[in-house]
Formats: sequence, structure tokens, C-alpha cells
Amino acid sequence: MGLQKLTSQEQTDALAALKDWSLVDGREAIKRTLVFKDFNAAFGFMTRVALYADKADHHPEWFNVYNRVEITLATHDVQGLSIRDIALAKFINEIYVQ
Amino acid sequence: MGLQKLTSQEQTDALAALKDWSLVDGREAIKRTLVFKDFNAAFGFMTRVALYADKADHHPEWFNVYNRVEITLATHDVQGLSIRDIALAKFINEIYVQ
Repeated sequence: MGLQKLTSQEQTDALAALKDWSLVDGREAIKRTLVFKDFNAAFGFMTRVALYADKADHHPEWFNVYNRVEITLATHDVQGLSIRDIALAKFINEIYVQ
Repeated sequence: MGLQKLTSQEQTDALAALKDWSLVDGREAIKRTLVFKDFNAAFGFMTRVALYADKADHHPEWFNVYNRVEITLATHDVQGLSIRDIALAKFINEIYVQ
């Protein structure tokens, strides 16, 4: 048995627990925007996420300009959300220092 | 005398010299999409650009998903393109290994 797509109820529960993440319109994905002191802080954060992501073999879609990082998470293999997205979102929440 | 906005002729000349960069529709900015072997290679490249950008105090707008990096360059202070964008684009071209 491979990776499972989250049920609608599992999505709802996960989003309630995560806070600050929301569903992307028209797509089974979640997103969060994070703001930092400056580019150095933003890219330092991105580097921590990159190390986690490459180890987990689960990568974000993200946009950065100066001190702002917009992150979208989804799992290609299930065409929606999986436990990997929730784990990555939790990690991001944990290391985010405003 | 501060940073100058490139003239239309300077833009044209710079784009011809840079190759692989194009103007963004409806905006005085230039863009390029780069593809790498995998996320590790893409983020390694982004890290080199980040170090350059923070030293130069001139930062890209960029999007990454897995092995793809889409970069947009513009200079906020001149509401358009400046020599800083051309310098950053040149650096990106130089370090890009497909």
C-alpha cells in the first residue's frame, strides 16, 4: 500500500490543527505566506526547508521576493494532499520565527 | 546621482547580449526559466544566487518547484530595469549548469 490521499475529513482536521494554512482555490493543495525581517532571514528559512524537503523527497512549490515566502504544498503522486504535506507544513510552522 | 533606469535602447542591447532572458508582459522586468537535474541542483543554484543577491543588495523574484526555477528581475528604486538587473542576470547565466 502506497501513499494515501487524505479524506475530506482528514483535510479539515489537519488544517484546523496546522493553523495559518488554507486551501488553494480550485486545487487540492494548501498554502501559507510567511514574512521575515529581510532576505537573509527568508532565505535562511528556505534553506532549512530545502534540507528537510530533499531528505523527505517531498518538495514545496514556493515563491520568494525579498522578505516574503509563499509556499504551496501538494502531493503529485496522489493528485491531492497526503500526510507528507501535513508533515512538511508542521515543520515549516515549527521553524518559522517572525 | 543614484541608480539610473535603462533607456529603451540600453534594454534592447542588454537583452541581446544576455540571451535566454525576455521582457515580462506589461512590466519593465526580465525573466528566465531554468531547469536542473533535480531539486538538489536547483536549490544549490538558488543558494549561489542568494549569496550574490544579498551581497549586492539586489534580490530576485523567483519561483521554484522541484527542478525548475523561474526568475524575474527588476529594480524597485527605478520602477524598471537598471544595471543591477543586467549584472545579476549575467551572474545567473554564468553559473547555470544544465
